[in-house]
Amino acid sequence: MPEQALPPGSAIGILGGGQLGRMLAIAAARLGLKAHVFEPGAAPAGDVARLTTAGYDDAEALRAFARSVDVVTYEFENVPAGALDMIEGIVPVRPGRRALAVSQDRLEEKAFLAGIGIAVAEHAAVGCREELEAAVARIGPGILKTRRLGYDGKGQARIRGPGDADTAFGAMAGAPAIYEALVPFEREVSVIGARGLDGIVVCFDPGENVHRDGILRTTTVTGAVGRGIRADAALIAGRILNALDYVGVVGVEMFVLPGGGLLVNEIAPRVHNSGHWTIEACLVDQFQQHVRAICGWPLGDGARHSDATMENLIGDEAGRWPELAARPCGLHLYGKAEARPGRKMGHVTRLSAKT
Amino acid sequence: MPEQALPPGSAIGILGGGQLGRMLAIAAARLGLKAHVFEPGAAPAGDVARLTTAGYDDAEALRAFARSVDVVTYEFENVPAGALDMIEGIVPVRPGRRALAVSQDRLEEKAFLAGIGIAVAEHAAVGCREELEAAVARIGPGILKTRRLGYDGKGQARIRGPGDADTAFGAMAGAPAIYEALVPFEREVSVIGARGLDGIVVCFDPGENVHRDGILRTTTVTGAVGRGIRADAALIAGRILNALDYVGVVGVEMFVLPGGGLLVNEIAPRVHNSGHWTIEACLVDQFQQHVRAICGWPLGDGARHSDATMENLIGDEAGRWPELAARPCGLHLYGKAEARPGRKMGHVTRLSAKT
Repeated sequence: MPEQALPPGSAIGILGGGQLGRMLAIAAARLGLKAHVFEPGAAPAGDVARLTTAGYDDAEALRAFARSVDVVTYEFENVPAGALDMIEGIVPVRPGRRALAVSQDRLEEKAFLAGIGIAVAEHAAVGCREELEAAVARIGPGILKTRRLGYDGKGQARIRGPGDADTAFGAMAGAPAIYEALVPFEREVSVIGARGLDGIVVCFDPGENVHRDGILRTTTVTGAVGRGIRADAALIAGRILNALDYVGVVGVEMFVLPGGGLLVNEIAPRVHNSGHWTIEACLVDQFQQHVRAICGWPLGDGARHSDATMENLIGDEAGRWPELAARPCGLHLYGKAEARPGRKMGHVTRLSAKT
Repeated sequence: MPEQALPPGSAIGILGGGQLGRMLAIAAARLGLKAHVFEPGAAPAGDVARLTTAGYDDAEALRAFARSVDVVTYEFENVPAGALDMIEGIVPVRPGRRALAVSQDRLEEKAFLAGIGIAVAEHAAVGCREELEAAVARIGPGILKTRRLGYDGKGQARIRGPGDADTAFGAMAGAPAIYEALVPFEREVSVIGARGLDGIVVCFDPGENVHRDGILRTTTVTGAVGRGIRADAALIAGRILNALDYVGVVGVEMFVLPGGGLLVNEIAPRVHNSGHWTIEACLVDQFQQHVRAICGWPLGDGARHSDATMENLIGDEAGRWPELAARPCGLHLYGKAEARPGRKMGHVTRLSAKT
């Protein structure tokens, strides 16, 4: 136990009041810690924590928030730098600036990963139409993405050949972009890793993800992912965590190539949708693991007692709750008032015997 | 799904803001339901729910509370009848009056159980010293208990022979009492049962309880409890639930007699300390089961995927959190400010392979 451990009764601040903040607040409560959520808009997390409703440019509200807690974390990677400046003068922010800087910018992220010897897709920076044309000519089919502020498939355009370049470039609306080669992957896996304040790294088993329309649909965790991939994924996550001197939980999305090699697609410096299965299948889930890390507590061991499949409930799929409640699964509803299309409203997790 | 099911977004009211209320509020949040806690004193549950701080005799506060929710439940059995009267005029209270009346009075409880054919300890009502003397002469060694308001061994006095009667009677301070025979039991088990609004009954596997100084220390759930006892305990719980037309979770404490027979010691019309192991070992735990029941949702199936041992952290034992956090167990701290002797501050649950 590091000396800096925050004792029970301490308060953690959470920037962002969505479902991730909500599940973090619940995890904190389980450990006798208080949570204080800062969110400019509607905040499902406010049902289970103290809530400040204010903008990220409200210096006074940010300072009062920071003074009311012992550590600050966040549920989304696009925290404005100005807000962080304000908070960091008062209380530690975990994971730190470096993790945010890297994951806020797809180009920096790729450069960071390549710099520590981790394979990434072939890519090129795209600032103007000519750079895009050159990139498509060199790389072939790929995806043009804004460097910043993309999520759930937003800010992305597929390019099959030079003829698609114009439309794709237009879709970026002038934002700095990155062109990435289309990777012929067999499947996508993600690993949820954690690093404590003492530098110890613990990973959950990787899960296999299925997306539809750019949104995660299911994550499945079984023995079928294979021992080699499990070990490689944990090593990659560990290398990322150590290189960033990271404290907290990270989600690392990877492509499994036909030969079994792994290529990192994206880093999320926070608890991650593909780690929700840990709530039911592990003694310490990703949310508690994150709280433990940022509070300087020992990490849980990450072992799972069961196989698990997590399925997201998107938009009006959450209306299936009466039927889902009658099935043997862990049902989670996020308390969001309005079921807009594409919005994550809840999820279910099914368990089966560990393989 | 009964038509009366409260949809996600509905609010449940909880009378009592201790650790049980806190864990109920968390369970409600998981299902997208809101919680509103009513508590006159310090309220750990207020960290994870809306909180009204007011007395049970504050009619205005009770009415506002009742109007703000869709159903009311409670975390303790000694809810004043006047408060219930006020609330019931506005919103349903589950479990209902009958369950409270029976469990608030040890004598009524015994009469109810005997009346539905369930074995209880030999006992006698004690209103005066002469009645106690007659009871001790007839029953032999036993325990004198106040009929009402006892918990965690409070309001009880052991009687080994006629010489103890005077002191024991004095300890009741004039309160109506019941004298119960000392039961030569082999062990104590408890079963957590639930009954839905549709009348369906589901039980968790019974656990074996160990008490010290009248306070529950550990509950252990393994296959060793035996198939016969498991079945008998579930049948007894089911009979109680049906006889009370009960909606919600009940805790039933039983003695296992040398021959394997079961004798019911006590009914708690609420989630119960001896059911905390279900958080880690079941897909739907006792808290969510209770929330499902009172909201008219289908019950979860009660199966456990693991063996479990729950250990309470009493008084300053919660100071062991740094060591416990480093062990492979589910750690729960209740967020109570002051670790008074005998106070339940948290608990830990260890899992092992199901037997």
